[in-house]
Amino acid sequence: MSAKDKYHEAFKTALEKEGWTVMNDPLSLKSGTIPVYIDLEAERIIAAERGNEKIAIEIKSFGGPSFITDLYMAVGKYICYRVILEEKKYDRLLYLAMPNKVYQENEEEPVLKTFKREQIHLILFDEKAKIVKQWIKQKNTNP
Amino acid sequence: MSAKDKYHEAFKTALEKEGWTVMNDPLSLKSGTIPVYIDLEAERIIAAERGNEKIAIEIKSFGGPSFITDLYMAVGKYICYRVILEEKKYDRLLYLAMPNKVYQENEEEPVLKTFKREQIHLILFDEKAKIVKQWIKQKNTNP
Repeated sequence: MSAKDKYHEAFKTALEKEGWTVMNDPLSLKSGTIPVYIDLEAERIIAAERGNEKIAIEIKSFGGPSFITDLYMAVGKYICYRVILEEKKYDRLLYLAMPNKVYQENEEEPVLKTFKREQIHLILFDEKAKIVKQWIKQKNTNP
Repeated sequence: MSAKDKYHEAFKTALEKEGWTVMNDPLSLKSGTIPVYIDLEAERIIAAERGNEKIAIEIKSFGGPSFITDLYMAVGKYICYRVILEEKKYDRLLYLAMPNKVYQENEEEPVLKTFKREQIHLILFDEKAKIVKQWIKQKNTNP
């Protein structure tokens, strides 16, 4: 199991403030012979008749020396986790959680278009205030 | 600039044996404020009237302690490089070069479906014989 992200607990608190209940920390899966640990699995009651909404989340603090190297790893994990979840027919919408500050600082970088093009859903959080600032659910452009 | 992959030179030799000429080693680009180094850019004459074919290649030896961690980084780089090339309108078909042995050993892992689903083109090489074993150009399933 890999080490917890630096902002793991801060993000978890932020998510709980949004009304989510953490089901698994981490979500442990086995894909073929490979053990996989996605940072969090959470659920929220939408409405009694519609049941619960369930999501999986990869948390990335982007605290490394290079933003782009952290981005490569975050994107690679997200893409592979999504394939793993689909292959297991484990129906969880996957989000990448990242500090709002890091997102804002790099918003103009062309490489950030990767999120939209690759349908990477985001949760932007404030690690100090421990709150979610924004949910970004990408629209499917290939319906 | 990041360190060269362990099999960089072996792969380069293999590629040249296939009739390709290396144009840039590495291919240096600037995306917004971020310097990006793709391992190789190569070209090959197809036919006088059709001009040259040009490609960019990320080489990954998968020599780290964890196959899956190496895979996350390879996939993340590939996806981000592809967006960067598109954003710059730098028309190069991007390939991920990896040892044939590593591919064969992990072929049954569900996570390897990532290559097909995400349209990641592959060059499988034998690092000892310094030859290309297989080119895998994914078919576009969203025409």
